[in-house]
Amino acid sequence: MKNEAGRPRATVSDYTERDLIARIQQRLPPAPDWLLVGIGDDAAVVEPEPNRVEVLSVDAIVDGVHVDRAFVPPEAIGHRALAVNLSDLAAMGALPRLALLSMALPRDFRVDDFDGMADGLAALASRHHIHIVGGNLTNTSGPLTVDVTVIGTVKRRQAMTRGGARAGDEIYVSGSIGSAAAGLRILKSSTAESSVSSLVERYLRPEPRIRLGLMLSRNRAATACVDLSDGLADGLHQIADASGVGVAIDEEMLPIEPTARRIFERQTEDATLTAISAGDDYELLFTVRPRWRHRLGAAARHGGTPLSRIGVCTERRDVTIVRSGAVQPIPPGYSHFR
Amino acid sequence: MKNEAGRPRATVSDYTERDLIARIQQRLPPAPDWLLVGIGDDAAVVEPEPNRVEVLSVDAIVDGVHVDRAFVPPEAIGHRALAVNLSDLAAMGALPRLALLSMALPRDFRVDDFDGMADGLAALASRHHIHIVGGNLTNTSGPLTVDVTVIGTVKRRQAMTRGGARAGDEIYVSGSIGSAAAGLRILKSSTAESSVSSLVERYLRPEPRIRLGLMLSRNRAATACVDLSDGLADGLHQIADASGVGVAIDEEMLPIEPTARRIFERQTEDATLTAISAGDDYELLFTVRPRWRHRLGAAARHGGTPLSRIGVCTERRDVTIVRSGAVQPIPPGYSHFR
Repeated sequence: MKNEAGRPRATVSDYTERDLIARIQQRLPPAPDWLLVGIGDDAAVVEPEPNRVEVLSVDAIVDGVHVDRAFVPPEAIGHRALAVNLSDLAAMGALPRLALLSMALPRDFRVDDFDGMADGLAALASRHHIHIVGGNLTNTSGPLTVDVTVIGTVKRRQAMTRGGARAGDEIYVSGSIGSAAAGLRILKSSTAESSVSSLVERYLRPEPRIRLGLMLSRNRAATACVDLSDGLADGLHQIADASGVGVAIDEEMLPIEPTARRIFERQTEDATLTAISAGDDYELLFTVRPRWRHRLGAAARHGGTPLSRIGVCTERRDVTIVRSGAVQPIPPGYSHFR
Repeated sequence: MKNEAGRPRATVSDYTERDLIARIQQRLPPAPDWLLVGIGDDAAVVEPEPNRVEVLSVDAIVDGVHVDRAFVPPEAIGHRALAVNLSDLAAMGALPRLALLSMALPRDFRVDDFDGMADGLAALASRHHIHIVGGNLTNTSGPLTVDVTVIGTVKRRQAMTRGGARAGDEIYVSGSIGSAAAGLRILKSSTAESSVSSLVERYLRPEPRIRLGLMLSRNRAATACVDLSDGLADGLHQIADASGVGVAIDEEMLPIEPTARRIFERQTEDATLTAISAGDDYELLFTVRPRWRHRLGAAARHGGTPLSRIGVCTERRDVTIVRSGAVQPIPPGYSHFR
């Protein structure tokens, strides 16, 4: 078939689905021995990992909704499509194992952009030793849409949920909040230095906190955990609702990078409220029983990112922030579906 | 929140993602005991089935590519989104167990259409005892896109692939071919009686051949198997390529319904070539070693659909059809991705 000759054509519609899948496959490492049937048959066949339960998550990236191809390079779209799913597994304390891809491609999508996306996906997959066992490609009259399903494993009693917090538990967050949102603003203002900013990097290539999640679950350090895909405010409400507690956080303790704060303030906004309601951070928010605080030691030292204690769970079931001594309710995050 | 009050609004953008997911959940049966954490946390947690390997498949339905909302009702879209995936599991001989959904919804998608889609999905899921363990909803500026990932189980040595056929194996197909394509033509011509035609039903609500696939794999009756999502011609090429054999089928033996044949002929087409290249049938195509033919008995009696022997695998590696005594090559099916 003439398409198999190797010379790249302009757009994906010059290729067969099989050719395009081959372009992804050639970026993957050799199949692990638990993969009994891989890409190319009707379905993949996989040997489950003994003595583990499975953790499954699906998430989508839609151009114009979650990313904008105008300023997000293809490789970052590929990275992000997998990263947002891995972040969900991190929040459960799971070790990721495999992924399935489903992409809807505009007919005029360029093959070098397709390759870039595959590069971003494959690079992140390979860093986390995840194998892509199957996929589906279709065209669409709409925007680029990348769906990823990931499956990981965890010991049955070590899976973390949102529902285990009790009044008195301390609340921690990893890394910083609002950084990705600040990076997005830099990107949108598209100055020359935008490509080097670490904030931009936080937006473009969020690092799923897999290692931290694993350490929290294996040590049984966390009583509840959630990832911050939709922002800190939303995460606090999720834990509060699922656990049947309230939460009170302290403005002074929030890890907001000074550069991010300046970017928000320059736009005459309340920087703290912007940072706690901004999405895309993909940090972990979790609760720790005070007498188990020592279990946090290893995660704090080797989890790959600083941890900040930002507040406490309360009997009273409201979600609040203390600002200059005054208690203020935190409204639920952006919850209309996007 | 005012959206939770129950009175249905016009479009999905009046709802939160959580509200919409709840509308799907209320259509599902109670969670099975192997589902440790279901919809509502960062990810689902599932206990694997002991002594089985897992079979995984992902497939997408895009409005305007795989279906057309102009003449396919929402409930049939929901049915089909799951059915095409189940058909892949059927071809591997797997028993389906769970599914994850990911839907991208146009902002003006009506909630009663969303409910209809959920009805179609839930009805098919419940008939096959499949639990929907997770999902993701997003909006899109493009067409309705429904991605489904399904996972099933099979005994390790019973998984059927495309690659096990040998020269001399007989080739079988279930049900009839071309019926869905004929049904689609009836639908497009939109006459009054279209809603009662069994051909239309074959297009709108393809029945995944799960039972047949299970019987073929458990009896070790089939040496290779594929589902006919992209048509008989494509399926024959898939088995031939993967198994390293040729195939020769006989026009006389093809199960083409007379009504379907008439519809194709009325449009002055070669009805046989149309039927073998038409997609959407979701029947199973499989090969049987002649001395194991007796193993087919149970599948033929209880597989839920008639079986037709249509040809034989050959040493000579070409894919041909015998028509009125003359041998004619079968070109590869529609392979550009859609």
